[in-house]
Amino acid sequence: MIEVHVTTHSRDTALKLAKDALGERLAACANIVDQITSLYWWEGQIEHDKESLVIFKTSKARADELTAFIIANHGYDLPAIIRHEEVIPTPEYRRWVHQETKADQ
Amino acid sequence: MIEVHVTTHSRDTALKLAKDALGERLAACANIVDQITSLYWWEGQIEHDKESLVIFKTSKARADELTAFIIANHGYDLPAIIRHEEVIPTPEYRRWVHQETKADQ
Amino acid sequence: MIEVHVTTHSRDTALKLAKDALGERLAACANIVDQITSLYWWEGQIEHDKESLVIFKTSKARADELTAFIIANHGYDLPAIIRHEEVIPTPEYRRWVHQETKADQ
Repeated sequence: MIEVHVTTHSRDTALKLAKDALGERLAACANIVDQITSLYWWEGQIEHDKESLVIFKTSKARADELTAFIIANHGYDLPAIIRHEEVIPTPEYRRWVHQETKADQ
Repeated sequence: MIEVHVTTHSRDTALKLAKDALGERLAACANIVDQITSLYWWEGQIEHDKESLVIFKTSKARADELTAFIIANHGYDLPAIIRHEEVIPTPEYRRWVHQETKADQ
Repeated sequence: MIEVHVTTHSRDTALKLAKDALGERLAACANIVDQITSLYWWEGQIEHDKESLVIFKTSKARADELTAFIIANHGYDLPAIIRHEEVIPTPEYRRWVHQETKADQ
């Protein structure tokens, strides 16, 4: 099991991305943290925006497809997609994530 | 030092879990992020709930006891307990976490 | 690329820390999660405070300087500075972080 983190411009984008990715069985769960404040360099300026953070929980086997799905449906030129691969769930939770992300449901 | 992350159904559950775990010296600190939106597969449906995320900071030596404590006091059939073991604190913060999670206080 | 996480006493401290660190090119991006609830042991008591969580995204090369900068500008005696070094961004995002954290801009 791994986590894939990405920030989005709006809550609606985060919700749609989460719902659609789960619908494709590319993740078992998505936690969305709203109203984060992001400061970042863009074209020589420090930008200051509101974003939502989506934390996907998925299997390593599905991670590349999930990443491609996020890129195709995100809206930014350069989405901040970051994998946390060293996380360790309980054995039960790992089994559940693997079960829920099987392609042939 | 490691982080143990878990989501709970409500803020009250998160606060009680954090307070009681710290009371047992199973963690030195707990950060609670409220009002996250969680989407997840459960019994063939995509569920959509509000949750709180608890980030415990503890020592590796106490991690198994903390995990058992969370399972015993959580309320879900399958709590999403996820360890982030590869985190690197400053030496001072690591010492503080180890000091505050010693069993024989 | 790595993430450096730190909690601050207030949103204003978090914003200033983020803005100034980015201004020094010590990070490419900072995400701030407000209104987290923190419970922690301090001088024999369990304290209960509101904090903000700052997640910096920077290059490994700049991580020591960023850590020193946070310590110098934070305000706590013992700031909870925690590196997440095992994160894996997309190749494009990694390039962007490295580009934006070059000292000689």
